[in-house]
Amino acid sequence: MKFHGRDIISIEDFSREEITYILNTSKTMEAVASKGSDMLKGKILATLFFEPSTRTRLSFEAAMLKLGGSVIGFAEAEIASVKKGENLADTVRTVENYADVIALRHPLDGAAKLAAELAKVPIVNGGSGSEEHPTQALIDLYTVQKEKGKIDGLKVALVGDLRYGRTVHSLAYALSLYDIELHLISPETLRMRREVLRAIQNKIAVTEDSNLEKVIPKIDVLYVTRIQKERFPDLAEYAKVKGTYKIDLKTVAAAKKDLTILHPLPRVDEIAPEVDSTPQARYFQQVYNGVVVRMALLALVLGAVR
Amino acid sequence: MKFHGRDIISIEDFSREEITYILNTSKTMEAVASKGSDMLKGKILATLFFEPSTRTRLSFEAAMLKLGGSVIGFAEAEIASVKKGENLADTVRTVENYADVIALRHPLDGAAKLAAELAKVPIVNGGSGSEEHPTQALIDLYTVQKEKGKIDGLKVALVGDLRYGRTVHSLAYALSLYDIELHLISPETLRMRREVLRAIQNKIAVTEDSNLEKVIPKIDVLYVTRIQKERFPDLAEYAKVKGTYKIDLKTVAAAKKDLTILHPLPRVDEIAPEVDSTPQARYFQQVYNGVVVRMALLALVLGAVR
Amino acid sequence: MKFHGRDIISIEDFSREEITYILNTSKTMEAVASKGSDMLKGKILATLFFEPSTRTRLSFEAAMLKLGGSVIGFAEAEIASVKKGENLADTVRTVENYADVIALRHPLDGAAKLAAELAKVPIVNGGSGSEEHPTQALIDLYTVQKEKGKIDGLKVALVGDLRYGRTVHSLAYALSLYDIELHLISPETLRMRREVLRAIQNKIAVTEDSNLEKVIPKIDVLYVTRIQKERFPDLAEYAKVKGTYKIDLKTVAAAKKDLTILHPLPRVDEIAPEVDSTPQARYFQQVYNGVVVRMALLALVLGAVR
Repeated sequence: MKFHGRDIISIEDFSREEITYILNTSKTMEAVASKGSDMLKGKILATLFFEPSTRTRLSFEAAMLKLGGSVIGFAEAEIASVKKGENLADTVRTVENYADVIALRHPLDGAAKLAAELAKVPIVNGGSGSEEHPTQALIDLYTVQKEKGKIDGLKVALVGDLRYGRTVHSLAYALSLYDIELHLISPETLRMRREVLRAIQNKIAVTEDSNLEKVIPKIDVLYVTRIQKERFPDLAEYAKVKGTYKIDLKTVAAAKKDLTILHPLPRVDEIAPEVDSTPQARYFQQVYNGVVVRMALLALVLGAVR
Repeated sequence: MKFHGRDIISIEDFSREEITYILNTSKTMEAVASKGSDMLKGKILATLFFEPSTRTRLSFEAAMLKLGGSVIGFAEAEIASVKKGENLADTVRTVENYADVIALRHPLDGAAKLAAELAKVPIVNGGSGSEEHPTQALIDLYTVQKEKGKIDGLKVALVGDLRYGRTVHSLAYALSLYDIELHLISPETLRMRREVLRAIQNKIAVTEDSNLEKVIPKIDVLYVTRIQKERFPDLAEYAKVKGTYKIDLKTVAAAKKDLTILHPLPRVDEIAPEVDSTPQARYFQQVYNGVVVRMALLALVLGAVR
Repeated sequence: MKFHGRDIISIEDFSREEITYILNTSKTMEAVASKGSDMLKGKILATLFFEPSTRTRLSFEAAMLKLGGSVIGFAEAEIASVKKGENLADTVRTVENYADVIALRHPLDGAAKLAAELAKVPIVNGGSGSEEHPTQALIDLYTVQKEKGKIDGLKVALVGDLRYGRTVHSLAYALSLYDIELHLISPETLRMRREVLRAIQNKIAVTEDSNLEKVIPKIDVLYVTRIQKERFPDLAEYAKVKGTYKIDLKTVAAAKKDLTILHPLPRVDEIAPEVDSTPQARYFQQVYNGVVVRMALLALVLGAVR
């Protein structure tokens, strides 16, 4: 397995064996995270966020700093050279001269892939268009593994916007590498994209439904997503479906005692605050896991862990 | 006295003994500031500024870096997840997974307090609403102590906007722990808030007036504040009072030779530039003191100094 | 030669001997850049960008980090205290308390000079108004020296906006210290400023023309600039001249085999992407050189290299 110099663009680029290796490396990073390290001393991460995402950006930055590296970057396209009409290709070919690794977030599908083709340094896709968010999928797998001690054999429900939410596309692909039962719960208009569905149906058992109540008693992991206003081409469509699913204490009561509730965050009102203090709520632990998984990825692509 | 793990929310949470300890620790930080240190190596400060304040943010960041730590954060709410509808509670419960301490600036009263109740890591209030700015009050005390060799026995005038300016609220409380004579000079509409006034009147001698000329000859410390346009609910009110007090060379000439002029900055035109080169003007030294006081606070709440 | 504590404001402040020293120091920084260094450990660079320039800002930041220092700052005036009406003088007298060196970018002519007069710490001009961009000129000289093994004896063409582009003003002055033949190619309305022209005409051979084809076969270095929309007082004027010169494979074919094409970047469409993969295109190497030249400048003004 070779990670040194590799780009992290799509979860589909990784075999189950490679994912296992990343998850195991992430586990070793928990100790490093609490002590600090000089593993990446002298290395620079550039966070190029053409679309704001405080959470993802700060997570990458914390990961780099905890490994002893440093960070440069920008937090939104408005303050970048794109204002002057520069294209992504030139930005990447410029910034690779400043940094040893680039974490890229971009509103357009394919942006991370294009960047990876051009750049001499590794590109880590921090979310591009509505297609891919591979590091989030790895964080989700890591969290499931940590909470349940395994991934195989679980029943998982993905709930909410399965059409525009890039997180669930990457996660569905990732889960299809395991022996799981997958339940896709969404309004009719926000069904999982057909190309994703087709790709995973060959590999695992998948059901689609609008009704969460039906599946809630039998699942082990409930993965909730925000219905993202900013991804809707038509706001009238957004108004119709927002607030469709709201996880509250009644949902929790109807589920298995050891249900694990995850959410990539930020949330708006899909999960009631009353749920936060239940043992089932693991979405803030998921945030912590985000740092160690990104530490693992940065250490791997920069060759500090082999 | 226990500072390790403690939040710095309101100046009212600190006894005079504790403040003395902070001021003494700040003094030891002057040597550390000039040499640099690894005291907080491996620690991360998150600066969450939901309201822009370059000065305060850079001061916190410089303090952290001079102690060998590192910094992540954002400089205005526009680029933060709040755009996606996230609430402060979730932001705090997320960022505490990235950082060892959080400096928070927020436009709403009570924001820092709420954050402190939720967070596992220490919260340092970098200014919240129009109520509190505890680190600025500590910087002001440190500066007075350094300039005058003492705080007890002094005559201090606070001038300008005493109603909306959070700095003067925290400072008035802090000064009331000492044996001082306090003169509050402001337009009628910008009088010190009644609840602050009542709280300090029990402890120290306080006068209120609109006329600065009357008190200028007898005071030791003149604390000038900006009339902050952004805090006025009504711009017509702002227009009426802006420029009411303007400190110039005539003001200086009418005062004691060893008057100390302070200002939390930024200023607009409350102090004429001609005053800057007088020995009385100490507001840029006050800026330097801001770094060492914040170094002390970060080192204390992170347990590096005990 | 004394660089410790010195401001880098205008290329005109430097003798040819001093420039040679900076270029030689830059060369030694190439090894430092790839290994990393603790040369500026404990030192802080403040990047005060009152005008956005991702490229220049990140280049300065990478330079500082590669020397082991750290960075604070802001990326645009919108989020700085200027919003509160603060003037540049107060910002500088504040930030000098936070940082050991300041890199300043400002839309107004003379801003860097004013800052340098006020500040106790060295100011490095990262571009001010339409007049000066001294670090870019040093990078350009360094790149020519590296590509050609010499500067004396070359034929150089500056193409595009020679009136509003600050880069070419600084570069023309710098080149006039060498024994070169300079060709200024621009539309009539974007001719090189008369004061710059007069200053360099005394020292070197200069021609002015609107026609690039005529000079292309004889030149050694082709320096292309963007026609900067944001510098035009009148957008109708901009519309008339944009796209006047477009360097493509035909241009390259008409030139000497060993032509060196440079561009300060970002570009819009002055150089066709097809040119990027020719050996003549050296503008991305120029970006890399930017980091080592800025490392040299930071190390010199902070006294780490003498």
